[in-house]
Amino acid sequence: MEINNILVVSPMYRELQPLIEKENIRKNFRFIPENELENEDLKWADALVSFNLKSDIDYSQVKWVHSLGAGVDRFLYGKTWNEQVLLTRTICSFGQRIAEYCLSYILKDLQFHEPFHVAKHEKEWKPFTPKLLSDQKVMIYGTGEIGQKVAQIFSGLGVEVYGVSQSGKRKEHFKEVMTMEHHVSRLAEMNYLINTLPLTNQTARLFSKNIFGQLSGAGFLNVGRGLTVDEKALLDALKEEQVRFAVLDVFAQEPLPKENPLWEHPHVYITPHISAVTTPDEGVACFVETLKNLEEGKPLRNRVDVEKGY
Amino acid sequence: MEINNILVVSPMYRELQPLIEKENIRKNFRFIPENELENEDLKWADALVSFNLKSDIDYSQVKWVHSLGAGVDRFLYGKTWNEQVLLTRTICSFGQRIAEYCLSYILKDLQFHEPFHVAKHEKEWKPFTPKLLSDQKVMIYGTGEIGQKVAQIFSGLGVEVYGVSQSGKRKEHFKEVMTMEHHVSRLAEMNYLINTLPLTNQTARLFSKNIFGQLSGAGFLNVGRGLTVDEKALLDALKEEQVRFAVLDVFAQEPLPKENPLWEHPHVYITPHISAVTTPDEGVACFVETLKNLEEGKPLRNRVDVEKGY
Repeated sequence: MEINNILVVSPMYRELQPLIEKENIRKNFRFIPENELENEDLKWADALVSFNLKSDIDYSQVKWVHSLGAGVDRFLYGKTWNEQVLLTRTICSFGQRIAEYCLSYILKDLQFHEPFHVAKHEKEWKPFTPKLLSDQKVMIYGTGEIGQKVAQIFSGLGVEVYGVSQSGKRKEHFKEVMTMEHHVSRLAEMNYLINTLPLTNQTARLFSKNIFGQLSGAGFLNVGRGLTVDEKALLDALKEEQVRFAVLDVFAQEPLPKENPLWEHPHVYITPHISAVTTPDEGVACFVETLKNLEEGKPLRNRVDVEKGY
Repeated sequence: MEINNILVVSPMYRELQPLIEKENIRKNFRFIPENELENEDLKWADALVSFNLKSDIDYSQVKWVHSLGAGVDRFLYGKTWNEQVLLTRTICSFGQRIAEYCLSYILKDLQFHEPFHVAKHEKEWKPFTPKLLSDQKVMIYGTGEIGQKVAQIFSGLGVEVYGVSQSGKRKEHFKEVMTMEHHVSRLAEMNYLINTLPLTNQTARLFSKNIFGQLSGAGFLNVGRGLTVDEKALLDALKEEQVRFAVLDVFAQEPLPKENPLWEHPHVYITPHISAVTTPDEGVACFVETLKNLEEGKPLRNRVDVEKGY
C-alpha cells in the first residue's frame, strides 16, 4: 500500500507533531485538531490517524485509518464502514495498563484497605488477615491482546484465571476459556469479573441479569465499554449483593452525568476512562510500527476485523 | 538431633493442635496457651514451638526452638541466647504476603485511588493518567528470603528493583545490591523504599535523618520492625516532603498507642502488623517441614544465625 499524505487529527496534535517529526519519516504530514477537520483535508490524505471522527466527514477516500485508541466502536458501532479502507488500532501497552489498574483494585479489596482506613480514623488496632491472590478466581471477558496480557500478569501472580470468548478457544495464560453460552454455570465460583470486551452488536448490554444474577458476591471491573453493561441490572445486583462492589472506568455516557446514581453508590468506584490511556509517546510508537509493517508488507497484529468490530 | 517431646505454646494452640495431629507425627505433643506456660513444661520438652517467650521462663534446656513468626527479635534482641539451642523461624509464604501488601499500596499510589475517590465524592470527571510500574524504582532493605521474594514479584512486573544488605552481595531479581554505606547516594532517584529488615543491633533506628533526608518525595513502606525507624525523623521527613507518604505495618510499640501522632497524620497508612501473618495452616506446614529436615539431617534454610539475629 502506498501512503504519502498522512493526516493526524487529535486533541493532542500538538504533542504528537514533534514526536512524529523526530522519527524522520519521509511522508507528508498535516496535524489538526478534531474540530477543524474538513472534507478538503481528507481529499488530500491517503491515511488518517485519529481518535474519533465527526459524523459529517467522509473518510472513505483514504486507504488507511489508524485509531489512536484501542476501541474502534467510535468508527464502527452502528455505522457502515467502507471495506476498502484498512482499519488499524493502537494496542501497545494497553494490556499492561489495564492489568495494573485491575490489580490495584483487586489488591485494595484483598488487603482490606478500606477497613484499615476506617480503623485508623478511629485509632483502632484491629488485626485481620489479608487474602492472597493465589486463593482467587478471576473471569476475564475477552481473550484478545488486552485480555491475554491481563491473564498473563494475574496468572503470574498465582491467580486462577478463566476466560470468556466467542470461540471458547484455548489461549495461553488462561486455565480455561469458555464460550459465552457455557461460562454462566461457572460464575458462582468467581471472586472477580473483568470485562475487557469491545462494543459490538454481540456485546451491547451483555452484562445484564443473566450474568450478574449468577454471582455470589463477586467484584465486577469494567475496563471495556460502558454500553456492554445494563446499568439498572448492575444496581440491582449490588443491592442483592450478587455483585459486592463494582469498579467502573467506562460508562454508557461519558462524562458520567451528575444525576447518574452510580456516583453516590458506596460500593461503586468510578474512574474517568483512564485505565488504558494512549500517551503521546506510545500512540506515536504504535503508529510508526504499524506504518513500517504496512510498507514492508508484514502482518498487522492490530488490524481490525471490521465484521467482528475489533 | 533426637526430638521426642514437643511443646507448642501459642495463642492459637487450639487451631494448631488438630492440624498437627492430622500429620500423624510419632512424637509426644503438648499444646498450651502462652499464659499457662511453666518451667515444668519446659523440663519435659525437647523442642519448643512458639511465637514468643515469657521472660521468666528458662527455655535453655530444650534442644530446639522453632519460632512461629518470621522475626525472632522477641527471642534474641537485647537477650542472651544459649548457643547450644537450635533456633529456626517460619518463612513459608511471608515473602508472597509482604509483596502483595506492598504492591497494593504502591499501585494505590500509582493509580491515584485517593484523588479519584475525592473526585467521585464531588461527582467530578477529572481524567489524569495512572503511572506504570515499569517507570518506578524501588529500594528494598534486606535481600534475604523475604526481600528476595518481594524483588522477584516487583521485577517481574517491570519495576527497577535495588537492594540494600550488609554484604552488598549480588542477588537474583535485584538490578543492583548495595551496602548500607554505599546506597545513600542513590536514594534521591527512588520512588519507593521497602523495609523488610529484622531488628538487630545493626538495624535499630537505622531509618533516621541519614536516610530520610536524602529522599525526594518517596513512599516509605515498613514491613520489617518498628524499632528500625526513628519515628521523630520520619515525621520530620513527611513534613519536609522528603517522604511523600508512609505505609506502616510495624511500630516501636504495638498496639500503637492512641496518643501516637502517626494515627492522625494524613499521609500515613497504618495496618496492625498483618502484612506477614502466620496462618495456622502455614505455620504447621513450615514446622513439619523443619522437623522433617532436622530428623533427616538435611540443611535448614530457616535456621537463625543467632549472632546476626536473623
